[in-house]
Amino acid sequence: MKKSLGAKVLAFPTPVWIVGSYGEDSRPNMMCAAWAGVCCSKPPCVYVSLRKATLTYGNIMARKAFTVSIPSQKFVREADHIGIVSGRDEDKFKKLGLTPIKSDIVDAPYPSEFEVVLECKLLHTLEIGLHTEFVGEIMDVKADENLLDEKGHISMERFKPFVWDTGDASYRAIGEKIGNGFEDGETIK
Amino acid sequence: MKKSLGAKVLAFPTPVWIVGSYGEDSRPNMMCAAWAGVCCSKPPCVYVSLRKATLTYGNIMARKAFTVSIPSQKFVREADHIGIVSGRDEDKFKKLGLTPIKSDIVDAPYPSEFEVVLECKLLHTLEIGLHTEFVGEIMDVKADENLLDEKGHISMERFKPFVWDTGDASYRAIGEKIGNGFEDGETIK
Repeated sequence: MKKSLGAKVLAFPTPVWIVGSYGEDSRPNMMCAAWAGVCCSKPPCVYVSLRKATLTYGNIMARKAFTVSIPSQKFVREADHIGIVSGRDEDKFKKLGLTPIKSDIVDAPYPSEFEVVLECKLLHTLEIGLHTEFVGEIMDVKADENLLDEKGHISMERFKPFVWDTGDASYRAIGEKIGNGFEDGETIK
Repeated sequence: MKKSLGAKVLAFPTPVWIVGSYGEDSRPNMMCAAWAGVCCSKPPCVYVSLRKATLTYGNIMARKAFTVSIPSQKFVREADHIGIVSGRDEDKFKKLGLTPIKSDIVDAPYPSEFEVVLECKLLHTLEIGLHTEFVGEIMDVKADENLLDEKGHISMERFKPFVWDTGDASYRAIGEKIGNGFEDGETIK
């Protein structure tokens, strides 16, 4: 029996993505986004949804570019801090001891220490309500070499990423493999 | 040292969401979407990105509504099957022995057996490229009562949802809690 929980943002999983952008005087900033995901295969695109009040909103509008860094579980405290504090009040790179790298493709920075980064060029904005969606074309994905398996794929066992549980306001590990795509469903005759 | 992997759709995590819609003659259909997520808090909205070639694309355009069902790990084979086969070739509800329920709020169906469902009214479409984004306002979230903890929240321990690993084309469990949001970051002074 299902129970109605109301018109709420309750959906699982949501990501923990660190959005990198340059502000005035080319000061690098990071924010944490869970309202984010993949939205197109060709061109390859991701989006992040941001409130107008954020520093990142203005930064992306001005520079037409952003990065999405995906941290592993060892950076859960840093990710949470990035989500709590505004870049208006603190240089989060300095505070957290993270190294801002200038993307060689788009006009945005990313923290060297987080394992995977997507470098994105702003393609669309969509005003929805409290949040504005920024759709970015993925110009390149870069990953720490030690994460790659023999096929050159990012190994989840090595990477150990995590998700956001919006219902409980907690972070959860991405765990063991439980099935194979485009295979398991074939066994249903 | 980071290695360039190219301009690819490589992002973690992505969800395994089952999109319910009515077709002609009110025939219920389901498809599986990983290009999906939350995109606004007020109004509460999710989106799913679909190719024009899908049956669901036309269904949502016609009915202006869809549901998003989130299955637990015990339904991984069913979810994969829903992602492999087109509703043009098969009645997936019948094939999988799932029960189509008509939403009492929006003009779309959902499978009774999947544990969590979001009932959505179409708010925006955004043409990006191969995929079109459908933004839906969440009119209600319904969850199986036995998933709810003492606070009325959906317990991840009881629910046991999973994610899509697009790099490896596999499904992975959402695992143990590794941190608390808006708390862990406060410990960085």
